[in-house]
Amino acid sequence: MNRIIVTGASGFVGRATVAALADRGYEVHGVARTPVDDIRAHAWHTANLLDPAEASAVVRTAEASHLLHLAWTTAHGRYWSDPANLAWARATCSLAEAFIEAGGVRAVMSGSCAQYSWDSEAIGPSGIANETSTPRRPATLYGWAKQATAELLEAWSAQVGLSYATALVFFPYGPFEQPERLLPSVARSLLAGEAAEVSVGTQVRDFMHVEDCGAAIAALVDGGVTGAVNIGTGQGSSVADVARLIARLLEREDLLRLGARSATDEAPKIVADPTRLHNGVGVTPKYDLESGIRETIDWWSAHATKIAPG
Amino acid sequence: MNRIIVTGASGFVGRATVAALADRGYEVHGVARTPVDDIRAHAWHTANLLDPAEASAVVRTAEASHLLHLAWTTAHGRYWSDPANLAWARATCSLAEAFIEAGGVRAVMSGSCAQYSWDSEAIGPSGIANETSTPRRPATLYGWAKQATAELLEAWSAQVGLSYATALVFFPYGPFEQPERLLPSVARSLLAGEAAEVSVGTQVRDFMHVEDCGAAIAALVDGGVTGAVNIGTGQGSSVADVARLIARLLEREDLLRLGARSATDEAPKIVADPTRLHNGVGVTPKYDLESGIRETIDWWSAHATKIAPG
Repeated sequence: MNRIIVTGASGFVGRATVAALADRGYEVHGVARTPVDDIRAHAWHTANLLDPAEASAVVRTAEASHLLHLAWTTAHGRYWSDPANLAWARATCSLAEAFIEAGGVRAVMSGSCAQYSWDSEAIGPSGIANETSTPRRPATLYGWAKQATAELLEAWSAQVGLSYATALVFFPYGPFEQPERLLPSVARSLLAGEAAEVSVGTQVRDFMHVEDCGAAIAALVDGGVTGAVNIGTGQGSSVADVARLIARLLEREDLLRLGARSATDEAPKIVADPTRLHNGVGVTPKYDLESGIRETIDWWSAHATKIAPG
Repeated sequence: MNRIIVTGASGFVGRATVAALADRGYEVHGVARTPVDDIRAHAWHTANLLDPAEASAVVRTAEASHLLHLAWTTAHGRYWSDPANLAWARATCSLAEAFIEAGGVRAVMSGSCAQYSWDSEAIGPSGIANETSTPRRPATLYGWAKQATAELLEAWSAQVGLSYATALVFFPYGPFEQPERLLPSVARSLLAGEAAEVSVGTQVRDFMHVEDCGAAIAALVDGGVTGAVNIGTGQGSSVADVARLIARLLEREDLLRLGARSATDEAPKIVADPTRLHNGVGVTPKYDLESGIRETIDWWSAHATKIAPG
């Protein structure tokens, strides 16, 4: 049985990925500031990963062959420009150094589609981002921190003999998403019988159910593919389409206020080229948008009153 | 008077830059593992910068408004692929974080022309590297570590309000260069009356006297230019031309063996576009190649017997 350290195991993507890793027979050692009871980890290690000594202690104790590093600053609305992105980049390097010193064999880091250039000139009118051909000139500190860390670890792992991949995660949604984010906020408002105010929502994104996202990351960990791999469906949907779908499934189209909020200056279209994920890693998503949103609405319907917005 | 912390102050480029900063009226606080007597620093701090606690202690003690970070792994022949490049990238982030916490205002990091793509398709037949238009896809771990660190610090400094620049240093030569490197090894062999064996030496590089290099970095520190700035002359010379010049000046052309060593697989041509350094920073080199080499030979002539190869 392979043993794996998963940082950020208690997070939105972490929770789904831990389940998928357990399904694949991994002994999961979750790392979190506060362990969470209902996650299928074999063991928990409490650590502040920004402290290199704490990170190193966890790695030495766990003696894992595999490492999945999902932890990062993710405070909603703030993480794009959070100065802590630098500390997370630095902490990620420390963690990788500690992991190889402890005899680690394979590591996957959670990257982001924010590592790509989102401007339409760089990405092209299709909006399809390919791991090899689409430029990676991020527009944000978050994107640069993820991209620079990936560049560093890719070049370094080749020298030290570590098998290393970066998961370029697109737009996961589903159970346990932060309540103030788009899908939860629309679903929760409509479930409460309140108006859901969103922007005109013309921007097109690659939304992936978090269970599919977790399954894809687990498969990437479990295989031998190195370098960057998109974690997305290849299907683009506009934010307005998603909001309308939620409203239709909840039969509350009357409460949806498209255009009530001013649109932020965002890229018109960003969609994953899923070829490498399909052919190299060998996974395809289980949910299409409608089945995924339906499952998510059901979950929020059962949990909305229990989870307060942050 | 501005106070500046200079890491790597006892190194080849550090020593020349400290002198130039002192000329500009800076109170220089040198950081080194071992202080060096004959360098014009106001104060020395001994620290292992790879330990974040030691780096932070130095920064807190010095209370400097300026930071020049030159320290890095530079072991001859080994630094290109040295795994310690990751540790230096990480340590550089820690240092920058500590500096801004201690109230720092302006920081310059020593980058490298190795951050550019050196393949002729990317850089073009002219071999001229421009800060904006030439792609930065390094071929080495050293290049990636420098480039990723620059990307990170550039994006981060914009968020935290730090004035930040990266000095893309080309090929400094002159007094105190590591004896086993090209110029010193040729000069020392010929001075000793021994044959100097080099490759065919067709590769063209931008060689800059270290005094000009130090003066350019000091001017960059002292000004307000942010982002990347080439530290080079704009003049390309082949390695063979340099070797022949040394032999001619020493009147020992008989001992020069061009082609005696096999050529390594290197880029044919890499030369700095010096426009930004000239116009933005406002400095031009004092030495041309012949006067610079002459001065260097004189120095080696006086020091060759005192300095053993490493």
